[in-house]
Amino acid sequence: MIEALKDYPVVVECPVAWGEMDSFGHVNNIVYFRYFENARIAYFRETAVLEVMESSHIGPILASTECRFLVPLTYPDTVSTGTRVTDVGPDRFTMEYAVYSHRHQRLAAIGKGVLVTFDYASGTKASVPAKLRDRFEAMAKRGAG
Amino acid sequence: MIEALKDYPVVVECPVAWGEMDSFGHVNNIVYFRYFENARIAYFRETAVLEVMESSHIGPILASTECRFLVPLTYPDTVSTGTRVTDVGPDRFTMEYAVYSHRHQRLAAIGKGVLVTFDYASGTKASVPAKLRDRFEAMAKRGAG
Amino acid sequence: MIEALKDYPVVVECPVAWGEMDSFGHVNNIVYFRYFENARIAYFRETAVLEVMESSHIGPILASTECRFLVPLTYPDTVSTGTRVTDVGPDRFTMEYAVYSHRHQRLAAIGKGVLVTFDYASGTKASVPAKLRDRFEAMAKRGAG
Amino acid sequence: MIEALKDYPVVVECPVAWGEMDSFGHVNNIVYFRYFENARIAYFRETAVLEVMESSHIGPILASTECRFLVPLTYPDTVSTGTRVTDVGPDRFTMEYAVYSHRHQRLAAIGKGVLVTFDYASGTKASVPAKLRDRFEAMAKRGAG
Repeated sequence: MIEALKDYPVVVECPVAWGEMDSFGHVNNIVYFRYFENARIAYFRETAVLEVMESSHIGPILASTECRFLVPLTYPDTVSTGTRVTDVGPDRFTMEYAVYSHRHQRLAAIGKGVLVTFDYASGTKASVPAKLRDRFEAMAKRGAG
Repeated sequence: MIEALKDYPVVVECPVAWGEMDSFGHVNNIVYFRYFENARIAYFRETAVLEVMESSHIGPILASTECRFLVPLTYPDTVSTGTRVTDVGPDRFTMEYAVYSHRHQRLAAIGKGVLVTFDYASGTKASVPAKLRDRFEAMAKRGAG
Repeated sequence: MIEALKDYPVVVECPVAWGEMDSFGHVNNIVYFRYFENARIAYFRETAVLEVMESSHIGPILASTECRFLVPLTYPDTVSTGTRVTDVGPDRFTMEYAVYSHRHQRLAAIGKGVLVTFDYASGTKASVPAKLRDRFEAMAKRGAG
Repeated sequence: MIEALKDYPVVVECPVAWGEMDSFGHVNNIVYFRYFENARIAYFRETAVLEVMESSHIGPILASTECRFLVPLTYPDTVSTGTRVTDVGPDRFTMEYAVYSHRHQRLAAIGKGVLVTFDYASGTKASVPAKLRDRFEAMAKRGAG
């Protein structure tokens, strides 16, 4: 277990691709949002968000996201990206992300995203389904990924 | 009109993105296949391939593709990518691509792809629909994009 | 001129690529940061940031960035991305971005980034060079791109 | 060890990213060339191609590449990509690639690329350095990755 990610119940790992470095010789900034997405989708799978979406037609939409870059990443390296849900509001919730560099043995970036729960049938914002709230809480208790 | 693309009935233009250069300072090889795809999809739109797919459940699937790199691309530049259909066979057709660099005023890459017509209803290869053959021929006669 | 981008001195345009849509059928979130980068790099070219970097060894590093998604983008569309510099501090400045959808005729996303000026020779943060401050001011006065 | 990759001395593994699927719900075709590149760069690292480049100023340039798609990839999955050098000519060599899907337990794509050895000092094609030939042969004897 990676100590820096111990408070993130879902962690996904992937190798840094050489071709994702830009001409400054660092992993390009947009790739960090791919790392965030990889963790977010894995979290959704573990909490069966898609099943809830199918039965209720209510699902999360990414409303905003941000990243703070701490250490430039370079090939070769492997990153582990952790995520957790915080601040569940009436019709939205926040996910926090942390990208850990195995090479540098420290966090390379942190970030977050706000997801709005959207009713695809009515085309409007919707309350976060109780089932999802329960799952988010269960995940938070579960602790480290 | 770009002389080097005069035999390609569909041509799409897009700027080279700085962030698509890799750490060798050249546009990364995978981006050329995105240029090809941009031209392919534009061609499909102009020949209404999607409408044929919807009415017949038969559509093209990319079976193979290749690219020959002639000149390295760098930012800033604009590329125009031309495409044409050649060699329409019983259950497949070939698309050829040419990527023209405005900066270098010459072709930066050429390539092609083989597309197999697939029947989504039965899950098997299908004959190229007569409607598509007619449209491909009409495009070939139309000449330059 | 695009009214919604009139306060952005640099505006770059690019077509939406079909292949940048994800399996939800919308342009994937990471692509918006590519749009931001395209505008940022164009701004740097117009203000000759790279020349300043070469003579002073001081250049901007992206410290953080964020995006708020307003309208989902789909192919076919063209986006124009505007950028401007705001809040020039002792060792950093902020760039704001706005992504305008030609199809929807409204902003599809807004965002910003904080760039820290870094002295590559000493490996530490540096003051924003006077030459850059002057250029940022000149750009702000110039008005719409 | 993956039986289907037993003749490839270098094999790299990476997870399929959800965001790399396009709106047809399959991993977009350009991503396969990223898989190829990941394997190619790993092979170059293992054979110390970069060291040879630095001492001799001769290095490989991708002249052409191709891919044949066998099975569509979807998230979640993990792919292992194998590569080997074949056909070392006077001033070029061929690399073959095979992408194995863990989910489908079969090859999802095969491909190859031709790399030309280029003398960066003189700007012309160069003979494949003897040191590289030796390493390619040693790799071929080594067998499966």
